[in-house]
Amino acid sequence: MQNGLVISLDGMGGDDAPLIVVEGAWRARRKYPQAKFIIFGDEQKIRPLIKKHPGLESVMELRHTPDLVTSEDKPSTALRNGRNSSMRLAIDAVASGEAHCVVSAGNTGALMAMAKFVLKALPGITRPAIATYMPTKIPERGVVMLDLGANVDCGPKNLVEFATLGGVFSREIMKVAEPRIGLLNVGSEQMKGHETVKGAAELLCATRHLPGKYIGFVEGDDICSGTVDVVVTDGFTGNIVLKAIEGTAKLIGSLAKQTFLSSWLGKIGAVLCLPGFAVALPAFMSLKKRLDPRFYNGASFMGLKGLCIKSHGGTDAIGFANAIGVAAEMSLIQFNKKVAQELESMGLGSEQADSTASLEEATA
Amino acid sequence: MQNGLVISLDGMGGDDAPLIVVEGAWRARRKYPQAKFIIFGDEQKIRPLIKKHPGLESVMELRHTPDLVTSEDKPSTALRNGRNSSMRLAIDAVASGEAHCVVSAGNTGALMAMAKFVLKALPGITRPAIATYMPTKIPERGVVMLDLGANVDCGPKNLVEFATLGGVFSREIMKVAEPRIGLLNVGSEQMKGHETVKGAAELLCATRHLPGKYIGFVEGDDICSGTVDVVVTDGFTGNIVLKAIEGTAKLIGSLAKQTFLSSWLGKIGAVLCLPGFAVALPAFMSLKKRLDPRFYNGASFMGLKGLCIKSHGGTDAIGFANAIGVAAEMSLIQFNKKVAQELESMGLGSEQADSTASLEEATA
Repeated sequence: MQNGLVISLDGMGGDDAPLIVVEGAWRARRKYPQAKFIIFGDEQKIRPLIKKHPGLESVMELRHTPDLVTSEDKPSTALRNGRNSSMRLAIDAVASGEAHCVVSAGNTGALMAMAKFVLKALPGITRPAIATYMPTKIPERGVVMLDLGANVDCGPKNLVEFATLGGVFSREIMKVAEPRIGLLNVGSEQMKGHETVKGAAELLCATRHLPGKYIGFVEGDDICSGTVDVVVTDGFTGNIVLKAIEGTAKLIGSLAKQTFLSSWLGKIGAVLCLPGFAVALPAFMSLKKRLDPRFYNGASFMGLKGLCIKSHGGTDAIGFANAIGVAAEMSLIQFNKKVAQELESMGLGSEQADSTASLEEATA
Repeated sequence: MQNGLVISLDGMGGDDAPLIVVEGAWRARRKYPQAKFIIFGDEQKIRPLIKKHPGLESVMELRHTPDLVTSEDKPSTALRNGRNSSMRLAIDAVASGEAHCVVSAGNTGALMAMAKFVLKALPGITRPAIATYMPTKIPERGVVMLDLGANVDCGPKNLVEFATLGGVFSREIMKVAEPRIGLLNVGSEQMKGHETVKGAAELLCATRHLPGKYIGFVEGDDICSGTVDVVVTDGFTGNIVLKAIEGTAKLIGSLAKQTFLSSWLGKIGAVLCLPGFAVALPAFMSLKKRLDPRFYNGASFMGLKGLCIKSHGGTDAIGFANAIGVAAEMSLIQFNKKVAQELESMGLGSEQADSTASLEEATA
């Protein structure tokens, strides 16, 4: 592998692929000038897009593959029939040590299945998880939430693993010195919740060397309140909660629009507000940026021996560039190495890594 | 029991009780002039509040009780030691047939435990649930969601019962001719989710005479989108999702405020917007009303033989009046009788009602 930072890209994943993938990589280069890319996909479609950006060709290697995974493919089908797909070959590049990380905006289920199959779980992790970070009420203070759907059924031990993964992410990527880790539950009292969360709470209280501080149960309204840095939950609850939060934000936006456009007085009021909005524009733009889902794009598959980042399928180049940024940051701080060290100090990482060890470990 | 509508009130439940309870009842009388109240609690505190409103004394019977359930009491403690509390006696009034329904803004866990113990479940219902309704993107179209925390562990059969209860509520109270009933899950495809939702989906597909149309799995962002009238889920997920939705709405409000107040330009912009906001005021007020949590106050304990409505503990008199409104509507349409008929036609209500039969049944 080359020195520096090599990012493998699924050129065909996402609603507007390959355009957003190439443009996203070009944008990401501004922040990560050392980054090099390997992009997999349809050469005829991708080559002209690369040529548009001077200098991109020299840092982006294009590997033609005619196969692709569609958004309708079942994970099992993709795994069985997609061995030469752009998604699979992009993941393979991480497993082989050619790339530090892979980014795809394709089919989530297929990507998770392939990544698990190809990259394998880290020693000490029984269930890899999907994590993302979101804005909170406190400026500059995001929250990491996991699992978001990789595991609909979880036991107490899985939740402790998620807490560890999320804690390392918060500390190393979000730069929170001692992340506050909370378990999502229906109340903060000890007696609340089902056996799984109660069991996980007991385990977390007994765990030494957690990468952060376990603060107990947190509730749904704590997620965005800034009172916690890592929210741990099972993949069923996490997936539904994340989508409900996104849905609520959209609802409020659409209602605000309806308010101004539903009546003549509303429309006149909107016009009268324009000068005020113009003066407050810098503040609005900073709020918009703080809430812009594109800047929170890039869900991490954590707990695998290689780094795999899922971009939202419907994102644009700015959003895809942000997902590349997540991949770059996690690669640069050697996220998996940090997780492995953490698991080791917790007495959970004793299991020997097998031949598909993570790139960080293999190249350390 | 007197004719008309008799509502039993826990005078001591809620942060600002008994004030909000008396004022709430007085407000509710405007919409329900036929309503009469029995209020339980500290006579010295409640009597002067009643006297403030001319005409209220003649329709509000005050029954003194020195005991009360605090917000810190465990449900088991409240059940054991609270036999003479305002909460318990207010529930007893429904069981004895003196009142059609009870409203309390007190401790949720204690209220649920007491209501279950005193009122008992309807024949055909194994697990009563907590339900509420919320605004959606579609004007005038709310959504009913249950369970919100009464049952953290649920089996497929419980979810079918929730679907029935929610369907009857949507049809009879929200006046939706054929409610669309959805099961909350991590995806809409049949293979998605854990065994409980998959099992419930199978049962719902096979159920005839459901009060509404089962439309399959729905996701977190469907809750507020207006694509579904009844959202069915377990109490663990429902509780967390509801609080996450409330938290997100608060977050956006607080961020909007921050935007205007965080900088001088923002503040000047806000002032410049004032004429526009003033012109658009009617539209704003209608949006505010549509989103005002007070107008969605009043969670129903469904599936019991008597009607019990839980008001938010921190609400004001307007919110409490709305909770009384939910109780009044459910009493007037004889909600439990409708549920019993529905269960009967589904072949689930064959079990004989025991001696604590619901008021509607007892007085039919």
